[in-house]
Amino acid sequence: MGNDNIVYIGKKPTMNYVLAVATQINAGTDGVVIKARGKSISQAVDVCEIVRNRFVTDATVKEVKISTEKLEGEGGRISNVSSIEIFMEKVPAGERKTEKAEKPEKKSK
Amino acid sequence: MGNDNIVYIGKKPTMNYVLAVATQINAGTDGVVIKARGKSISQAVDVCEIVRNRFVTDATVKEVKISTEKLEGEGGRISNVSSIEIFMEKVPAGERKTEKAEKPEKKSK
Repeated sequence: MGNDNIVYIGKKPTMNYVLAVATQINAGTDGVVIKARGKSISQAVDVCEIVRNRFVTDATVKEVKISTEKLEGEGGRISNVSSIEIFMEKVPAGERKTEKAEKPEKKSK
Repeated sequence: MGNDNIVYIGKKPTMNYVLAVATQINAGTDGVVIKARGKSISQAVDVCEIVRNRFVTDATVKEVKISTEKLEGEGGRISNVSSIEIFMEKVPAGERKTEKAEKPEKKSK
C-alpha cells in the first residue's frame, strides 16, 4: 500500500476529509488508511463512520491500530501523543455478504 | 465478559480512568473494555496508551471497534455520534514474548 492511500486528519472541516477518503476508496483497489494524532483522533473516527454510512456503504473497516508517537516540541522536550490508523477497504461485490472479507470460506463440497 | 469490565470515558481527568483501567486489568482475568463517544474518543486512546506504556506493560490491545450510535437529543432530534470500544487484556506470563498472543507458533523441529 503506497503513501498515496493515506489521509491525514488535521484542522480542516470534517467533510473535506470525508470527500478525500471516499474518492480514494472508490478510485483505488488497495483501500485507504486514515491517520490522526491527539485530539484529531475523534474526527478520524467521524470521517470513517460518515464515509461508511453515507457515501461508500460497501466499505468496511479492516483494522484499527492505536499507538503512541514521541514528538519533540520546542526546546527539545519530548511529549507522547496517541495516534490512530484506520484501515478501510471496499468489499468486492462477490464477498459482500460475509462479515469478514479477509478469509472467505471455500466450500469444497 | 460482564458489565463490570467496562470503563466509560467521560469528563473526568484522564488519570482517573487510567487508574480504573489499570486496577480492572490487574484484578480480573477477563480484561477490560474502554468505551467512549464523540470528543472523548481521543481521551479513550490516551487512557489505553498510558496504561499500556506506564502501568501494565504486559497488557495488550486485543481489538478496537468503531461504530455509530444514534442519540436522541432535546426535542426528539436524532444525532449520530461516533463511538469506540477498546478491548484490552493482560498477556499470560508464558506468552509474553510473542508479538501476537492469540496464535503462538509452535516449532516442530
